[in-house]
Amino acid sequence: MSGFAFNKLVIFGVGLIGGSLARALRERAPGGAGEIVGVGRSAASVERAVSLGVIDRAAALDDDAQLRDALAGADLVLLAAPVAQTGPLLARIAPWLDDATIVTDAGSTKSDVVAAARDALGVRLAQFVPGHPIAGRESSGVEAALPDLYVGRNVVLCPLPENPAASVARIDAMWRATGADVRTMSAQQHDRVFASVSHLPHVLSFALVEQILGEADAELKFSYAAGGFRDFTRIAASSPEMWRDICVANRAALLDELDGYTRVLERLRAAIDAGDGAALETVFARSRAARSAWQERGGKHAPGEPAPGQPAQTIRK
Amino acid sequence: MSGFAFNKLVIFGVGLIGGSLARALRERAPGGAGEIVGVGRSAASVERAVSLGVIDRAAALDDDAQLRDALAGADLVLLAAPVAQTGPLLARIAPWLDDATIVTDAGSTKSDVVAAARDALGVRLAQFVPGHPIAGRESSGVEAALPDLYVGRNVVLCPLPENPAASVARIDAMWRATGADVRTMSAQQHDRVFASVSHLPHVLSFALVEQILGEADAELKFSYAAGGFRDFTRIAASSPEMWRDICVANRAALLDELDGYTRVLERLRAAIDAGDGAALETVFARSRAARSAWQERGGKHAPGEPAPGQPAQTIRK
Repeated sequence: MSGFAFNKLVIFGVGLIGGSLARALRERAPGGAGEIVGVGRSAASVERAVSLGVIDRAAALDDDAQLRDALAGADLVLLAAPVAQTGPLLARIAPWLDDATIVTDAGSTKSDVVAAARDALGVRLAQFVPGHPIAGRESSGVEAALPDLYVGRNVVLCPLPENPAASVARIDAMWRATGADVRTMSAQQHDRVFASVSHLPHVLSFALVEQILGEADAELKFSYAAGGFRDFTRIAASSPEMWRDICVANRAALLDELDGYTRVLERLRAAIDAGDGAALETVFARSRAARSAWQERGGKHAPGEPAPGQPAQTIRK
Repeated sequence: MSGFAFNKLVIFGVGLIGGSLARALRERAPGGAGEIVGVGRSAASVERAVSLGVIDRAAALDDDAQLRDALAGADLVLLAAPVAQTGPLLARIAPWLDDATIVTDAGSTKSDVVAAARDALGVRLAQFVPGHPIAGRESSGVEAALPDLYVGRNVVLCPLPENPAASVARIDAMWRATGADVRTMSAQQHDRVFASVSHLPHVLSFALVEQILGEADAELKFSYAAGGFRDFTRIAASSPEMWRDICVANRAALLDELDGYTRVLERLRAAIDAGDGAALETVFARSRAARSAWQERGGKHAPGEPAPGQPAQTIRK
């Protein structure tokens, strides 16, 4: 067996992320894809994925026999449930994990996932290769899963010192088979980067709507909100549960970024207060140049989000 | 003469805003439109508008004879130059203003414009009806002017106690003839509303890019920025000069909103620091509900910005 090829892949949580991986492997690299088993809280919750042909069969997480059977002889396991469930999930599967099985995940934060894996897996930690496919989640559920969701997207792997190189290479090959670009960094670096370019903007966007809601003239203000407001707050329509979990899971890095941002705001506040137009223009011009350069490089975009210049539509067909 | 109809309209600054008004009146309500004169820093700067047929003739601001001739017998004057030029422009035209001429403007801020008008016009203040068409400015220049730029957009008028009701009604009728919805509020209220839903988001968006630029791993961070970052920072590609002027002009209201926003951020910071997921989820869920309700009402959008669900393209044809 070489590359990503597997006899059995087990996916915990067959929604947009897990379902799209299954569809991608099945449809883009059929020679390498063996049996795909989906595990949900109950078997019923995964039946939809079976009936859509995304996975071959379903198992229930709370049924010991089904879970053991699902994991027996598995080459690969993907955890694609909400990130806060990673620890409990790993603890649940640890007793039935074969020695040869490689486990990876799709969580939006990594330091906390690594800590949870260390607790849950103990000596089996070497079998866990942390990962994060950068794929938007405005649409969710297995109905939104697409075989080309990962084409041209980044997948970040955060290998542990304990991981055998061959295990990392296998997970790398699996994601490349979906069309993704795979990049590697430490869990700490990952969490800093995404705190900055993803988690913080979400908090800032939620905060603007929250601020307006707290004011007596909220309705008047909303009635005059236009295009700038719409773009700035689009991510405030994201899942409250998911962003709650991310904020808590990535607390340390997020607080660092938030504090750095607050210092920039204090600097801008002082310039506004002093009527220092030159200082403001310098900052605004520098930001515009950097933002435009990023856009021109065709900065990575998440699915469910349009590429630059494309309509903002969900990926739901 | 009734409604908006005029024998002579003089537009200072024939770019997107002024040019679109001229085209709208000419093409949507030809019976009421008389001669349209454009005034630029030099006559040459307005010749392009003449050659495009947007206006009938051009005059130079710095030529006394041309300026006096342009203003003689004018029914209506629109100031559509950058907002920081409003005071100097009013001072320049005040000596040649006929008693019957009604002056309005298109500035993004209003309290400072009213103060400048009071200084520049003195006893002629009653002739000035402050206004603000809510029209995006990502595209600029007379080439971007469109006859339907204002259709379905908001135009805010901030009438002064000194304004005769007939003057306000005339400006109101002029904007309605372009297809706009005209709404009225005080200058102070206007500045609070737009500080909140437009000026503050611009500052916050510029600030995020500025923050990332100041960090050692800026390049790495930009390379992972995706759809959320793109939407959040789209307005950071706006004109530094325009936003410098707006921040300085609307300083008091903007600082109020910025301070209110900082208090919300402090509250969220405390919740993140305490790992208080419930508090975060409450705020995020409330924000999402309000943002979604706004979107479903089809919240007003500025031209140059797409309507909800439409591509983010400029209005340039």
